[in-house]
Amino acid sequence: MRNTFGNNITVTLFGESHGPAVGAVLDGIAPGISVDTGFIRHQLDLRKPWGAVSTGRIEDDDFEILSGVFEGRTTGAPVCIVIPNKKADSSEYEKIRTTPRPGHADYTAEIKFGGYQDYRGGGHFSGRLTAALVAVGAIAISALKEKGILVGTHILRCGGVNDREFREYKEDIIKLADTRFAVLDEERGKEMICAIEKASANGDSLGGILETAVSGLPAGVGEPWFDTLEGMLAHAVLSIPGIKGIEFGDGFRAADLRGSEFRDELCCDGGEIRTRTNHNGGVNGGISNGMPVVFRSFVKPTPSIHLPQKTVDLENGNETEITICGYHDPAIIHRCRVVADSMTALVLCDFLSINAR
Amino acid sequence: MRNTFGNNITVTLFGESHGPAVGAVLDGIAPGISVDTGFIRHQLDLRKPWGAVSTGRIEDDDFEILSGVFEGRTTGAPVCIVIPNKKADSSEYEKIRTTPRPGHADYTAEIKFGGYQDYRGGGHFSGRLTAALVAVGAIAISALKEKGILVGTHILRCGGVNDREFREYKEDIIKLADTRFAVLDEERGKEMICAIEKASANGDSLGGILETAVSGLPAGVGEPWFDTLEGMLAHAVLSIPGIKGIEFGDGFRAADLRGSEFRDELCCDGGEIRTRTNHNGGVNGGISNGMPVVFRSFVKPTPSIHLPQKTVDLENGNETEITICGYHDPAIIHRCRVVADSMTALVLCDFLSINAR
Amino acid sequence: MRNTFGNNITVTLFGESHGPAVGAVLDGIAPGISVDTGFIRHQLDLRKPWGAVSTGRIEDDDFEILSGVFEGRTTGAPVCIVIPNKKADSSEYEKIRTTPRPGHADYTAEIKFGGYQDYRGGGHFSGRLTAALVAVGAIAISALKEKGILVGTHILRCGGVNDREFREYKEDIIKLADTRFAVLDEERGKEMICAIEKASANGDSLGGILETAVSGLPAGVGEPWFDTLEGMLAHAVLSIPGIKGIEFGDGFRAADLRGSEFRDELCCDGGEIRTRTNHNGGVNGGISNGMPVVFRSFVKPTPSIHLPQKTVDLENGNETEITICGYHDPAIIHRCRVVADSMTALVLCDFLSINAR
Amino acid sequence: MRNTFGNNITVTLFGESHGPAVGAVLDGIAPGISVDTGFIRHQLDLRKPWGAVSTGRIEDDDFEILSGVFEGRTTGAPVCIVIPNKKADSSEYEKIRTTPRPGHADYTAEIKFGGYQDYRGGGHFSGRLTAALVAVGAIAISALKEKGILVGTHILRCGGVNDREFREYKEDIIKLADTRFAVLDEERGKEMICAIEKASANGDSLGGILETAVSGLPAGVGEPWFDTLEGMLAHAVLSIPGIKGIEFGDGFRAADLRGSEFRDELCCDGGEIRTRTNHNGGVNGGISNGMPVVFRSFVKPTPSIHLPQKTVDLENGNETEITICGYHDPAIIHRCRVVADSMTALVLCDFLSINAR
Repeated sequence: MRNTFGNNITVTLFGESHGPAVGAVLDGIAPGISVDTGFIRHQLDLRKPWGAVSTGRIEDDDFEILSGVFEGRTTGAPVCIVIPNKKADSSEYEKIRTTPRPGHADYTAEIKFGGYQDYRGGGHFSGRLTAALVAVGAIAISALKEKGILVGTHILRCGGVNDREFREYKEDIIKLADTRFAVLDEERGKEMICAIEKASANGDSLGGILETAVSGLPAGVGEPWFDTLEGMLAHAVLSIPGIKGIEFGDGFRAADLRGSEFRDELCCDGGEIRTRTNHNGGVNGGISNGMPVVFRSFVKPTPSIHLPQKTVDLENGNETEITICGYHDPAIIHRCRVVADSMTALVLCDFLSINAR
Repeated sequence: MRNTFGNNITVTLFGESHGPAVGAVLDGIAPGISVDTGFIRHQLDLRKPWGAVSTGRIEDDDFEILSGVFEGRTTGAPVCIVIPNKKADSSEYEKIRTTPRPGHADYTAEIKFGGYQDYRGGGHFSGRLTAALVAVGAIAISALKEKGILVGTHILRCGGVNDREFREYKEDIIKLADTRFAVLDEERGKEMICAIEKASANGDSLGGILETAVSGLPAGVGEPWFDTLEGMLAHAVLSIPGIKGIEFGDGFRAADLRGSEFRDELCCDGGEIRTRTNHNGGVNGGISNGMPVVFRSFVKPTPSIHLPQKTVDLENGNETEITICGYHDPAIIHRCRVVADSMTALVLCDFLSINAR
Repeated sequence: MRNTFGNNITVTLFGESHGPAVGAVLDGIAPGISVDTGFIRHQLDLRKPWGAVSTGRIEDDDFEILSGVFEGRTTGAPVCIVIPNKKADSSEYEKIRTTPRPGHADYTAEIKFGGYQDYRGGGHFSGRLTAALVAVGAIAISALKEKGILVGTHILRCGGVNDREFREYKEDIIKLADTRFAVLDEERGKEMICAIEKASANGDSLGGILETAVSGLPAGVGEPWFDTLEGMLAHAVLSIPGIKGIEFGDGFRAADLRGSEFRDELCCDGGEIRTRTNHNGGVNGGISNGMPVVFRSFVKPTPSIHLPQKTVDLENGNETEITICGYHDPAIIHRCRVVADSMTALVLCDFLSINAR
Repeated sequence: MRNTFGNNITVTLFGESHGPAVGAVLDGIAPGISVDTGFIRHQLDLRKPWGAVSTGRIEDDDFEILSGVFEGRTTGAPVCIVIPNKKADSSEYEKIRTTPRPGHADYTAEIKFGGYQDYRGGGHFSGRLTAALVAVGAIAISALKEKGILVGTHILRCGGVNDREFREYKEDIIKLADTRFAVLDEERGKEMICAIEKASANGDSLGGILETAVSGLPAGVGEPWFDTLEGMLAHAVLSIPGIKGIEFGDGFRAADLRGSEFRDELCCDGGEIRTRTNHNGGVNGGISNGMPVVFRSFVKPTPSIHLPQKTVDLENGNETEITICGYHDPAIIHRCRVVADSMTALVLCDFLSINAR
């Protein structure tokens, strides 16, 4: 299906960047889960642009829960959350209507939707829609917390600067929850911010690498084929605009390792079966093994740069040059991370809703 | 869903390594597609083990088409292909029934299926099932060929050796089609084979990186959200046993690039709109842009090594040591590539079956 | 899935009777379909209560299109339509919170959702949600009209009175489109209205039988198994609250016919292949045969009657008696018919979105 | 999807009447369920033709379980069961290749599949495929039995003869389990058999009405919208070839009842909440209420009669006459009932596999 994701717990996404609102329907979530509007607000704030590292279009993100919540808890019926768009300025877009911006979906949208798409601000392709994912994702994150499962993401690399890796998963994730620029080493975070600001000053942009961890996930979650834990998470995470790669555990850097170096031997740790190492990122045969689930995702540099770019005028097929004005993000990686958490939480809730036996 | 993948064109997979057979049902494929049993045979042969780089369990892979094909063509009804298991030797498995092999699904299967799983030879988790994917994938590959769309995969890196990258996509893919050890530079292939043999002689194993390309895919294939071209391909490819990472276009190595370096400017090439570069791997906003689709996937080193390994005896919770005997692959990357082609083709056929408008 | 229906064109439904709004997301609909807000308004008005034959809770049904429509046409992105609730009076419901109303979903909701459900006015189970189905259904009906396919429903029987059956399908359907109380024979309609009013005066209610026809549907729509045209339509129609039966073509009354009486012989009518009779209701082997599709559905008498009824107090398990006050429909059959049209249209659009070959 | 049905527990069906085999894949079924091949055999025998009331093509129905069962129990992996075709005689079909049989899927298959369908014996549309549904359905029935849920169907009406209705659901269902011609009143059964034989002697055929009951189903099963218990059962049952209508509880005959006559008042029966009557057939708001679930389905008279019939020659568009020779069923209602039980059981298992909360 197109704008619906998940098997038993599903999210349906709608909206356009410059339309009346963006929103999402979360369906299948168990009744009785406490819905903390303050926490939804907090998560939306983590996604909000700020400072020189983000776009100047700052929306309130005042959300409205239209359904599925009663007396502070989920009812078992679908939860629809709507977030009105208030700050959209479409004036810049009319003039680039026929000259697709490189790296954006303008050209592919034109081909797929035959000119009927809402082209303003990226329309339905806009990262603006991730606000709705974050809103419903907050409920999924709350549902997981009630089971002792935590999800957290930090910026592992940006502008050539590395953050430290996860050490104590649970503590690190808790620490990240309130961090606006999500790094485990604050100093490195400052260097990254500098790099983004520098790129921005040049009219340019940056990407980077996110690292996500899940702690407390019991063994046995996932399927042997197709809906493997890795397959479902990859599907979810690669549908976040700008993310173009994912790797679990050691990932690509282990391409030269031998089996004897990559193996995760089992041990017994206080009565619990664990692995000594975690090269496999907490997943074997598509199913969680009780270790922290760890993956990294690649965020491409945002294509909205303020430098002149070559493109084609679709009206006459001639090559031409455009310069994108208006508000744009010099980086989205720091805003993406709460989207990554949200999609991860939605996938895990979905898996946990099925009776394994 | 569990063992079914796809939206309109679906594949349903069944079987166990040491059961009577493995098989798959391909449903939704258009009627009238020529089914060349010779080509299915050829694809199965590409997956077959051979020489010192593979397991010694060599199955005939005699397949039987049970349904959906009539007078040499698909009928529009589901195609079920069954491949009997003939060479399974279960004697080695009884003794490791309660001592899960590190890096395998033995432990996670035990937790998920509560001891009812067929543990012999990895059971339903076995790479053996990919034979069925290859058989039905051959039909998907044929269906794409009729539309001028070609899919090919080569071993980009193995044992520290790099193959050359794709140059002329169409020509390179055609060349790969008949290559048993799929490299674009034969000399590098020989070095890789040496490296695998060397690891094997040490009772060890190797992994590596596959690179897949699709040529001839028109612009407009994919969805803006969730069922993005990248999301669906990632889902499909990460469900191949042993594959733990995927990246499109430049991927992780572009983490330090700026937007001005990563952008793919549009141009007009003989009346066709194209991009000058292909950092985005042929996909923008989740939808194909008419350029070759390119992605790389990480294959972990096979966990079946012949060295002693530490594990836990599930019967008493004590740590113990096992040594895996029997036939095993010192590398699967050269066998995986035809599976990657098959899954890629199935995803593309699925997308092409929907009326865009 | 729970509140999403369809394969390629899907509708996702949300809302509660006394919550802020009801709404639906229509996804997968082709771009470029003209969206006539006047027609949506018209369809919602057909569903609106009026006179003594309906509830006194009369909502404006002012709808808002939040997404998926741009410059008067669908964009190919999901269409979300929201209809605020303005006239909900929850005061009557608190007192019956623990005494489920017979024939309603009160008791089953309590069991399924464990007391977390929004019990006010039937909550998520309320027929109020069908307003959202009608709103998105109007777009589906428009899309079908562009292909020459018409859908119409009339009240075949109510209060012991029979309407005449369909004669000229196309003309009859066109006639029904503007009829508030949908009958083909107006006199019979007046008798039915009398019967409803009489039941209402007694604090009682009525049900009846709807008959739906589709004209202009080409042959070849439907699947041989599971997603047969009958199976999908039955699934859709039986999810309309109060509908508990469906029959295609002759239906149950043909239980005593012989094969020689039920057969539909083929003939050639002006170059077109047709059947002389239509006992099969336009469907053979799950697939449309080019004849009008005809089915009837049974609408049970509404359970909201104003007579004292026996029930159980869930708090203490004691039997007790309740009398339902407030606004209620003495019949819903005349309001249901536009819902039946809407669900039928959604199913047909879904089928037509798949490339048969 | 096309040949796959269900949400979490799915069945995928394949095969053609005159192909090598028919089969089905049952996926998602819990591990550890006892698989009694004797019971599968017994169920297949109930579906087998016999005497003068059925076709003369009597297949062994020797089935093979290819996967998903180990040491006598389900493993949690998909169960594929294959039933070879041995008695197919295609000689009669070549001559009617271009002259579609009235009431069959011949014409609609030609339109949908463009002439590529396997036309022999109805191909993929054949009732022969229900053998595979019965085989996997037997496992679903066993899984339900372990939870105290029983499913049974009897022939309520055939040839103008009525069987008695259900009285003691559990006892009646148990009685039916071993009845080849499934009636509750044997004498009436004999009269029905006479009626079928008489029709058969005239080269004609009969249909009728089946009544299915489920006892022991707990309250709370089903969804408020779309995947209502009625919607899913209707979808499943109406995909059985020849079934064209379904009604729950009182059904169409209650079209003239008032709400005060149709209501099911609640009472407390030994601590359990029940309803005094069961007009609603055990379902309120799409969800089971703890009462027996009861529905009736209409089976059309089989279209394969031995009388001359008019049709059109697709090669030249001329009207012509055919007489169908070969083996055919003068009635299928007695064979259908075990298919109805199987589909019902599959739907119920599917619902029970989801965590309600």
